[in-house]
Amino acid sequence: MPEPLSTRPRKAAEVPSWDLEADVVIVGFSISGASAALGALEVTGDVLAVERGGGPEGTCGGIIYLGGGTPMQKAMGFDDTTEEMYAFLLAALGPGVDEAKLRVYCDESLLHYDWLVRQGVPLATGPDEEGTMLASPEDDGFINVGGQEYAGGGLVWTGGEQAYPFSAQVRPAPRGHIPRDPDSDEDLFEGAVLKCLVRAAEQAGVRTEYNLAVQRLVVDENDAVVGVEGRRLGSLVRVRARRGVALTTGGFIYNDEMLARHSPAMLAVSKLGHGGQDGLGIQLAQAAGADAIHMDTADITLVLTPPMSYARGILVNALGQRFINEDTYYGRLGAEAAFRQGAIAYVILDESTFLDTSWRRPSWAADSLAELETEMGLPAGALQQTVAYYNRHAERGDDPLFHKAKRWLQPLAPPYAVLDLREQTFPMSAFTMGGLRTAVGGEVLRPDGSPVGGLFAAGRATSGLAVSGYCSGISLGDCSFFGRRAGQSAATGR
Amino acid sequence: MPEPLSTRPRKAAEVPSWDLEADVVIVGFSISGASAALGALEVTGDVLAVERGGGPEGTCGGIIYLGGGTPMQKAMGFDDTTEEMYAFLLAALGPGVDEAKLRVYCDESLLHYDWLVRQGVPLATGPDEEGTMLASPEDDGFINVGGQEYAGGGLVWTGGEQAYPFSAQVRPAPRGHIPRDPDSDEDLFEGAVLKCLVRAAEQAGVRTEYNLAVQRLVVDENDAVVGVEGRRLGSLVRVRARRGVALTTGGFIYNDEMLARHSPAMLAVSKLGHGGQDGLGIQLAQAAGADAIHMDTADITLVLTPPMSYARGILVNALGQRFINEDTYYGRLGAEAAFRQGAIAYVILDESTFLDTSWRRPSWAADSLAELETEMGLPAGALQQTVAYYNRHAERGDDPLFHKAKRWLQPLAPPYAVLDLREQTFPMSAFTMGGLRTAVGGEVLRPDGSPVGGLFAAGRATSGLAVSGYCSGISLGDCSFFGRRAGQSAATGR
Repeated sequence: MPEPLSTRPRKAAEVPSWDLEADVVIVGFSISGASAALGALEVTGDVLAVERGGGPEGTCGGIIYLGGGTPMQKAMGFDDTTEEMYAFLLAALGPGVDEAKLRVYCDESLLHYDWLVRQGVPLATGPDEEGTMLASPEDDGFINVGGQEYAGGGLVWTGGEQAYPFSAQVRPAPRGHIPRDPDSDEDLFEGAVLKCLVRAAEQAGVRTEYNLAVQRLVVDENDAVVGVEGRRLGSLVRVRARRGVALTTGGFIYNDEMLARHSPAMLAVSKLGHGGQDGLGIQLAQAAGADAIHMDTADITLVLTPPMSYARGILVNALGQRFINEDTYYGRLGAEAAFRQGAIAYVILDESTFLDTSWRRPSWAADSLAELETEMGLPAGALQQTVAYYNRHAERGDDPLFHKAKRWLQPLAPPYAVLDLREQTFPMSAFTMGGLRTAVGGEVLRPDGSPVGGLFAAGRATSGLAVSGYCSGISLGDCSFFGRRAGQSAATGR
Repeated sequence: MPEPLSTRPRKAAEVPSWDLEADVVIVGFSISGASAALGALEVTGDVLAVERGGGPEGTCGGIIYLGGGTPMQKAMGFDDTTEEMYAFLLAALGPGVDEAKLRVYCDESLLHYDWLVRQGVPLATGPDEEGTMLASPEDDGFINVGGQEYAGGGLVWTGGEQAYPFSAQVRPAPRGHIPRDPDSDEDLFEGAVLKCLVRAAEQAGVRTEYNLAVQRLVVDENDAVVGVEGRRLGSLVRVRARRGVALTTGGFIYNDEMLARHSPAMLAVSKLGHGGQDGLGIQLAQAAGADAIHMDTADITLVLTPPMSYARGILVNALGQRFINEDTYYGRLGAEAAFRQGAIAYVILDESTFLDTSWRRPSWAADSLAELETEMGLPAGALQQTVAYYNRHAERGDDPLFHKAKRWLQPLAPPYAVLDLREQTFPMSAFTMGGLRTAVGGEVLRPDGSPVGGLFAAGRATSGLAVSGYCSGISLGDCSFFGRRAGQSAATGR
């Protein structure tokens, strides 16, 4: 077995010559990397992005979490304020949120919206046919343009703002902004934002080096980062960064050794993202003295809806107990199931509510709850009791346990259909949210809070806005927002 | 505000002269430190332990988890095997257990027992008056000498071996070994093991330097650790380690900044241990390139029993749902409540079962469950339903939800007394279990798995045997076992 590659930084004194040079070197060219390039190019014309693949890497979805009264929110008739956005995110993403980062993200959300539009990210400001196609067919009830559950036209509820418990704490507004793919009307989720930002960075003058796999940082005698060392087709390549290096290398959901050491429960969950999320950038920075924080955290998606009608069912755990309001955001549902319910979640539906589709078949069906208990291996009587309690209150439009919205409250009646959500076409899937500890400007910090000189980072290689909870769109949001800042900081050499 | 102290390693080239020197320098003189000293003294006579306080530091309890058929287990009539110990701990401490460490700990448990006895740790091999006084008064039913719940005479059940789910997986044996304090018959939990090991290390020839607060590691041009730098009364003191440095500096439950970055839920929990558990040693090693792992994990104690009779009640969460078998280990109960039940746990007891003592007063008392629901703010009907289900099955000696042992199953009858376990004299309390990543020999590892030259660690400054779960006695167990190994490794300079 070959020795594992060392991630220890190379001493600059050992580097005989540099093969490439730039003021700012960006490692990893995706949403964060392209945003870092754009940020750096605001300061200097000499920016180089290196990427180990043959082109920009990423499979990220297309929702960006923005608010405080964006043009799209206004066009769709929603009121929102910076303070409501802040209050909601503090509750939804915590505990453990970096309040300084969240503060600046909310305060500058409208500016960031404008910046994204200037980079060519097409944030449509009204409902249109293409926009409403983005989320899900209207006949599912998933989108209700201008309505209360899901706003179409490029604006969606993506964090459970409109459901318990947040709806009782903060006036809800949808903040998931969906751009359209400029090259295609078909596929609006996949890659649209990446394409726009990469194109903008290229037009602004970023140089790119593909198929160059960075393996170590290069540090000077004061342990400041002054470049990177990598390989291209087996040849060593040394890249000097005159002002700073920005790491935008992604998370570590594809590194099972890191998961075992930081977040062992995630080994049992499917992976969201691409194989490049192997944590190498985090390790390179750690080897140079950086702190990595919240390494146990992950976003875990468990798809119950769409169709939204499935919120009329009840979710139960292995004991037949309900554990969450079924109308909440599927990231909250996934985290609850994965972290607190032993990764087990069943949805019990009326057979009339259940939709038999190509991608959803019932795991069990029965005429009585007692039968279901036997078939599902639930404790005898447990499901009967849960349904009896639920039905008794649902008849009165009440859900004393979890406060599901009235419109989804409907007593369950036989025959029943059950989905074991572990067996569905879209299984519980996760990406990591922990990573390098950074300051608001993207400066990578040591455990004592001092910066690692010359090193900056953004995106899922860092611990960003989301810590204990997640909302769709937060990743593209903080990757682009703090990516730009990391690039600016690297270019000023702060 | 003064700048926070830098934890970045000092370069050896910047050290003009050394104030102290030894083959092995041990930082932190407690259970792990004394064991490391003893291990190092097996190899070299030149070992120096430095401690920032005026003497050995520690308030640890007195249980050591050992098994595989120890003399005490045999004397008490319990059969145990290495494989059963391994199988139980793998289940109870995981997921995420370092199987190589667990393997050697179990394989060498009998040798470690003998070693502890040779160091003067008095592991009594039979029941006696002092022994049975250790745990709790017999009339509480807490101890039943030779019986199935708690074995007296220096041997206790400390991980839920005898309760669901482990009792169904592995033949149970008690493995919590309680030594007696050689200086006092009164206080057998507090400090006895520490005193014995410190005395043994002193007799074996360890030198000690108290009131010397280590602040940085010193590294050579290859980033290997060659000493430490600290302060005594404001004066800089440089200590050279010719062969190795062993960090035995404890965990970080008293460092709220580290908790916020790694384990924010722990900020809401009381702290177990002493203020020295501030994570400094972890930070010093990280700054020298070490990996820190499982930083979110903690042992969380929530005391329901003694008296063991309280296992006849039911534990419910904020929704009035049961969530665990009440006869399990209180560390499992604490982790379940803190991590998965929003840190809320109520125990519902018959008034006849409740004991009104100086340290336990009922939080609520009522003649009916409906009344209790109102007073406790539980959803109407939820507790009634839970108790009806529990009673129906308890009458038949059955607990289909959590498989509590038959002897504790007793239908609840009015009037009722309720304890809010958050309000009790012994609140939910925690210590951290995450820390430096080490190899089986105590070598501190970088994120890429390579060792940090010259640096070794043990105890709660490291991620040890316990990861996702805990058993009382594991800490003293791995602190002494891997402490000794870290000292041996440091002395051989591996």
